[in-house]
Amino acid sequence: MVEKLRIYNSLTKKKEVFEPLEPPFVGMYVCGPTVYSDVHLGNMRTFMSFDVVYRYLQYLGYKVRYVRNITDVGHLENDEDEGEDKISKKARLEHLEPMEIVQKYTNGFHDLTKIFNMLSPDIEPSATGHIVEQIEMTQALLNKGLAYETNGSVYFDVAKYNKDHNYGKLSGRNIEDMMESGRALTSQDEKHNNIDFALWKSASPEHIMRWNSPWGVGFPGWHLECSVMGTKYLGKTFDIHGGGLDLQFPHHECEIAQSVGTYGNDPVRYWMHTNMLTMNGQKMSKSLGNSFLPSELFTGNHPLLDEPYSPMTAKFFMLQSHYSSTLDFSNEALKASRKGYKKMINGLRLVKQMEFVEDGTERGEAVVGQIEKIIKACHSSMNDDFNTALTIGQLFNLLKKINSLHTGQLGFSAIGKEVFEKMKSTYIDFVENILALKEENPSDYKEMVEAMVAIYKEAKFRKDFERVDKIRAGLKANGIIVKDMKSGIEWAYEE
Amino acid sequence: MVEKLRIYNSLTKKKEVFEPLEPPFVGMYVCGPTVYSDVHLGNMRTFMSFDVVYRYLQYLGYKVRYVRNITDVGHLENDEDEGEDKISKKARLEHLEPMEIVQKYTNGFHDLTKIFNMLSPDIEPSATGHIVEQIEMTQALLNKGLAYETNGSVYFDVAKYNKDHNYGKLSGRNIEDMMESGRALTSQDEKHNNIDFALWKSASPEHIMRWNSPWGVGFPGWHLECSVMGTKYLGKTFDIHGGGLDLQFPHHECEIAQSVGTYGNDPVRYWMHTNMLTMNGQKMSKSLGNSFLPSELFTGNHPLLDEPYSPMTAKFFMLQSHYSSTLDFSNEALKASRKGYKKMINGLRLVKQMEFVEDGTERGEAVVGQIEKIIKACHSSMNDDFNTALTIGQLFNLLKKINSLHTGQLGFSAIGKEVFEKMKSTYIDFVENILALKEENPSDYKEMVEAMVAIYKEAKFRKDFERVDKIRAGLKANGIIVKDMKSGIEWAYEE
Repeated sequence: MVEKLRIYNSLTKKKEVFEPLEPPFVGMYVCGPTVYSDVHLGNMRTFMSFDVVYRYLQYLGYKVRYVRNITDVGHLENDEDEGEDKISKKARLEHLEPMEIVQKYTNGFHDLTKIFNMLSPDIEPSATGHIVEQIEMTQALLNKGLAYETNGSVYFDVAKYNKDHNYGKLSGRNIEDMMESGRALTSQDEKHNNIDFALWKSASPEHIMRWNSPWGVGFPGWHLECSVMGTKYLGKTFDIHGGGLDLQFPHHECEIAQSVGTYGNDPVRYWMHTNMLTMNGQKMSKSLGNSFLPSELFTGNHPLLDEPYSPMTAKFFMLQSHYSSTLDFSNEALKASRKGYKKMINGLRLVKQMEFVEDGTERGEAVVGQIEKIIKACHSSMNDDFNTALTIGQLFNLLKKINSLHTGQLGFSAIGKEVFEKMKSTYIDFVENILALKEENPSDYKEMVEAMVAIYKEAKFRKDFERVDKIRAGLKANGIIVKDMKSGIEWAYEE
Repeated sequence: MVEKLRIYNSLTKKKEVFEPLEPPFVGMYVCGPTVYSDVHLGNMRTFMSFDVVYRYLQYLGYKVRYVRNITDVGHLENDEDEGEDKISKKARLEHLEPMEIVQKYTNGFHDLTKIFNMLSPDIEPSATGHIVEQIEMTQALLNKGLAYETNGSVYFDVAKYNKDHNYGKLSGRNIEDMMESGRALTSQDEKHNNIDFALWKSASPEHIMRWNSPWGVGFPGWHLECSVMGTKYLGKTFDIHGGGLDLQFPHHECEIAQSVGTYGNDPVRYWMHTNMLTMNGQKMSKSLGNSFLPSELFTGNHPLLDEPYSPMTAKFFMLQSHYSSTLDFSNEALKASRKGYKKMINGLRLVKQMEFVEDGTERGEAVVGQIEKIIKACHSSMNDDFNTALTIGQLFNLLKKINSLHTGQLGFSAIGKEVFEKMKSTYIDFVENILALKEENPSDYKEMVEAMVAIYKEAKFRKDFERVDKIRAGLKANGIIVKDMKSGIEWAYEE
């Protein structure tokens, strides 16, 4: 019997058995990208990790509603309550309407999710799509006395909240420490306390993104959107909330405070956080020049990269570590992952073609026991907080047995039809549907056509007409005709 | 000198020279899909037509802001003010949250736009994303006395509006006729007049999509979103508004009334409408069973279709008629379009490879004159209200000259480098960037690999080792290795 799914809960700092609120339904919310620039690789690792979580929960039979938002307003430059709105700033720099910026980078993000073979979430709501609800939650917090208005902006009163609740419980921070270490307030400040955060910001006249509200023209604070959209689509309490570790504080801490303040209960049962990327052991960051975009990885067009690495190589590489570990990029590791990915995908092609045949070999209880143990381990490693790293190792163990069957070293009858089918479906399910790796075209089909035409030319030169006819027929079956022109041999699409 | 771009304006019923309000900027709004089911072929024809408009305006040097919305609330079943909200109804039937319906069919629509090689609009706003603005426009119309509230719903007062303005000017209808022909009102009715339309609808307790408003809980009327989003992103007056002919009344007529009522001016300078589809001469409709989805066209999986037709064949077929004509589908016409598409795309491959070489042929003023005339005609046919049908004919004329050059019937020096380059760039620009046709993979690359492996096997059987080595090297260059197994010859990705 395979043990139950356990999830490391960042809130309790423990691995816990996963028990959804209303099985078989599972509600999962993941903080999506702020669409003011190309999504970076660390973000993609987060979304890819939760794509695997989404797929595995469905594999286990849960009916999952997966909500991943698009942040298209409210995220300020310094991730706190100061500086310009990230999207408004980019719009100003590029002389575009903010929603053009949003469209451009949302499209780019969606393209990447397809390239990485990820599923769409069930709902992908945006912050600007929920202004009414954000105004209402702000009003509710004002009504409860947990927020105050200054100059048309509304702030959450953290100290007051903390009297009855624990602000800092997710990130393990202490409110006194935070108050001491924060910037000292001046008489210019609108906040009562440096740890208070904005629910609604008054818009200066030049701020492009603006809506009317009971407090004047403004825009919502960054943290508010996720509380509003999580509640709207998943309820006041839901099962899983995920995001990058960099969002744990202040973003997720503030989400908890907003929901507890408004509804009186904790919004999330299991908090999950993905870890950061490093390059050759050093934290990736734009300022160090050691971070790269997915597109740079795919083209190899970056000083730190020896060569291009394909999307599936990059995906395999990321899945080879557990989502909660830091992940170190290096050319050596990527090259090793390419080998690993190709090996795994060759296994997939192979196992899909294999059919059980009685070959009269003798039943081998030992090998049957080994295979069943590996199959069980595939499940138990995923059940161990979605440990894709361990799962990949187990799949390679399974592949060894598959290869033995293929080469005839191991007989089909020795393991029997039932075990064979279980082995086959486990390998296919885990590789194709859970890790979601897929075959990549090794080259443009046109290169293949050119290669065949080259063979055709040579055969023609040698007057090997039997072969000439065969190649011509083979190409024609693929919709391509070979033309003997005065100027030489050409190919074209059959008209 | 090529004549100026002229557009048939549905409002004035005339072809007019296109003069944008603030050149070089052009604002264009197109009514997007209501995402409660798979987008049908007629919709796709509309969006494809405006994709060509968008591309051609950019080709002419305009800086276009193209807005195409997503209708995700407010569109009622009977396209008027009665019946259930289309998305809410589907959500109820499928036991899903309405925004899950929205996500599913928006994804499907986006996939189709990629399959048809269409550009993304610059902004793709949604109705639910603009609730605040819709409430505000409703309030403005109430303030002007052009709307009234009944039982928490707000209706536009058409008769009152018509005293100073002309309701019906776009669709060519007369208000008295409309009032007479409409359903007689009963004492149960909330409307003062049968031609009034909803700006805001009160939500019954079981209605899932609902927002607070000054008039109670409800949702916006269908026509309002386009007025709001057009104004927000393109201004109170903008250049082009497009959509299917079925939207002309009431949807676009109501848009005009809302904007004129609120801002006192006509919102749109050029109204453009695409025409309907027929099948074998009969109007396509679900009830007649003679309509099909794009996916059915691509798979051939429909009783009226002989075989599958590829996306580019379908696109070429649609572009072969003018957007304002009805378009008749038939197997014969689709087969002819496949031939035409392949011919055009073979021309594209050919001309891209051609380079000018001085071949010493004598300058032929007559042929130069012919070519220049065709090039001019490519432009003037597009300038004639985006007549893609005529343009395709001219491109085939140009292709004849290109083919003559290729076969040597026409000498390069006879036309000179300058004319050659103009001919080449015109053909490429029009086919690839304006009509936006692209090469389609004639087959899966794997079939090509299999074909090459078959030749390899045969060569090996004949012990033709020189060829065996060549094929092996050719495949390896494409990342594929051939393996000689006991059980036969296999291929795999190089690990």
